[in-house]
Amino acid sequence: MMKYSPINVNEKFSKFADQWSPKIVAQMNEYHIKLAKIEGDFIWHSHVGTDETFFVVEGEMRIDFRDGCVHLKKGDLFVVPKGTEHKPFSEKECFVLLIEPAGVRNTGDVLNEKTAPDDFWI
Amino acid sequence: MMKYSPINVNEKFSKFADQWSPKIVAQMNEYHIKLAKIEGDFIWHSHVGTDETFFVVEGEMRIDFRDGCVHLKKGDLFVVPKGTEHKPFSEKECFVLLIEPAGVRNTGDVLNEKTAPDDFWI
Repeated sequence: MMKYSPINVNEKFSKFADQWSPKIVAQMNEYHIKLAKIEGDFIWHSHVGTDETFFVVEGEMRIDFRDGCVHLKKGDLFVVPKGTEHKPFSEKECFVLLIEPAGVRNTGDVLNEKTAPDDFWI
Repeated sequence: MMKYSPINVNEKFSKFADQWSPKIVAQMNEYHIKLAKIEGDFIWHSHVGTDETFFVVEGEMRIDFRDGCVHLKKGDLFVVPKGTEHKPFSEKECFVLLIEPAGVRNTGDVLNEKTAPDDFWI
């Protein structure tokens, strides 16, 4: 019954290749659940109004803070507190599930070539 | 640096055995991320004010609705719309990650022996 279809994360990841460009796969209340492929360095940014949840589905990544960092591997999650400057990094390609309010800009307070659409569903 | 520690989902699952009793592992804004072990039938209930996200970490489960059902396996997620009556079921033990606003009662509009604390962190 199509009305109640599961959303398979791995299948969704197979549908796109571009990095640093989160794709929405589900909405819960006013929040979006997004998938992103990341590799290399992102930019320093923060989200003034909201926390942001990272959950590593495949691979490993690091989130740098101005006073430390956190290493995340498959099965790890981490909530970046609102207003906290951070810079995601991944040596090899890493698959990440993100949870944050709808409309959050991936580059936070920064607008540049890394800024991705905030309304792209797959 | 303990200030930035990952939350490993599998490690957290190893810390409890009771079923149908979600444990909080993280907070994002006013939302909780919880882990639950489930097996057998839960009760019919709904959450009047909020959607509820299920993400299967290990195993398989089914969510019954009054007019259908959805089968979820490892890597599948599903958002139960607010106000929708549902009944989770799992033939064998299944490990689930839940995302919902803090303070949501696991049994929704019902209060009975399946009702678990809504503030238990691990």
